Amino acid sequence: MERTDETHGKAKRAQSPGPTHLAHSQAPMRPQELEHLREPAHTQAPNGTSSTDYSLLAAQVRSLSEEDAHWLPVLANASALIMESVPNLNWAGFYLMRDGRLVLGPFQGKVACVHIEVGRGVCGAAVKHDETQLVANVHEFAGHIACDSASNSEVVVPIHAGNGIVGVLDADSPLLGRFDEDDARGLEVVAAAIEKVADFSDLA
Amino acid sequence: MERTDETHGKAKRAQSPGPTHLAHSQAPMRPQELEHLREPAHTQAPNGTSSTDYSLLAAQVRSLSEEDAHWLPVLANASALIMESVPNLNWAGFYLMRDGRLVLGPFQGKVACVHIEVGRGVCGAAVKHDETQLVANVHEFAGHIACDSASNSEVVVPIHAGNGIVGVLDADSPLLGRFDEDDARGLEVVAAAIEKVADFSDLA
Repeated sequence: MERTDETHGKAKRAQSPGPTHLAHSQAPMRPQELEHLREPAHTQAPNGTSSTDYSLLAAQVRSLSEEDAHWLPVLANASALIMESVPNLNWAGFYLMRDGRLVLGPFQGKVACVHIEVGRGVCGAAVKHDETQLVANVHEFAGHIACDSASNSEVVVPIHAGNGIVGVLDADSPLLGRFDEDDARGLEVVAAAIEKVADFSDLA
Repeated sequence: MERTDETHGKAKRAQSPGPTHLAHSQAPMRPQELEHLREPAHTQAPNGTSSTDYSLLAAQVRSLSEEDAHWLPVLANASALIMESVPNLNWAGFYLMRDGRLVLGPFQGKVACVHIEVGRGVCGAAVKHDETQLVANVHEFAGHIACDSASNSEVVVPIHAGNGIVGVLDADSPLLGRFDEDDARGLEVVAAAIEKVADFSDLA
């Protein structure tokens, strides 16, 4: 995948030459560098609504990989960033492909389903069709798996590595119709950042 | 490791013969089964304090492994259970050993340090001494790594598999002196449950 718009705007600061807010591979992150990453990538609009700066969020995810590109710490911290940066979520995280089905990976939120078969529910549909799923009301989605009864709307984006899908990014909200096309495209930019920087080579 | 006290009391219901609240490996978990697991394992005492039923929490962690014993889904869901069941935490999760140091694994809370060297900070001390660390004030702990400035007290318990330590369970609180000996012993019971049921065989 080529350049995405994750390099625009504020996100550029994470890619400038010279000191960045994340340490490089030889030095552990200092607390103040972590604090910088914890600026939630969302802004409060004058009308009271809140929107997410997905370009900044994607840049933060890319920064996370500078210290260690292995998928485990990248996805664990990415879950935390998404949960903080996207308002009104009750669950944010990842399922990873293993033995032909999705298995629960790092996430933030309540206890979740462990296995999801390809084609089943919103996550399974994202894998089957290799396509982002934007679902305004999960209860109207055929075959929906209610992992958390608090979830009412959902976005799921496939994540690719090598020649196939290695997993999905899953974001759930208790609000009906929480996500619009901008959120779906924004989460695709975040997923593209993960695809670009995370090392999935040891996944079966 | 032999039987621990995680099989006492309420926890027994998870081990009774016949249907349990978790599906077995051939069937995906149904939503109501997940809901059952989401009963937080803590109770409100008449004096307003809240205590955690660590035996129940350990039994819930054991139940999680019935569908898939692989360490990834077990630790991801265990983080969620701990965060819900232990009051006043700002971070709960796991670091795993890789290439001689701790690397961030599944967790709940804010973005965290990716690498921790053995002997460094509270987590590194738990590995170095192969001993639970109960720290009332992390700022007084020599070499403390302030991953989250909100953390003021911490418990870290080593997790073993095969012939050594594969990682640590880490719980942080914004309250000074949040954890007492009962919490430390309780989290050891949870760690023992993880050691008993989780499959760490594919970790380097």
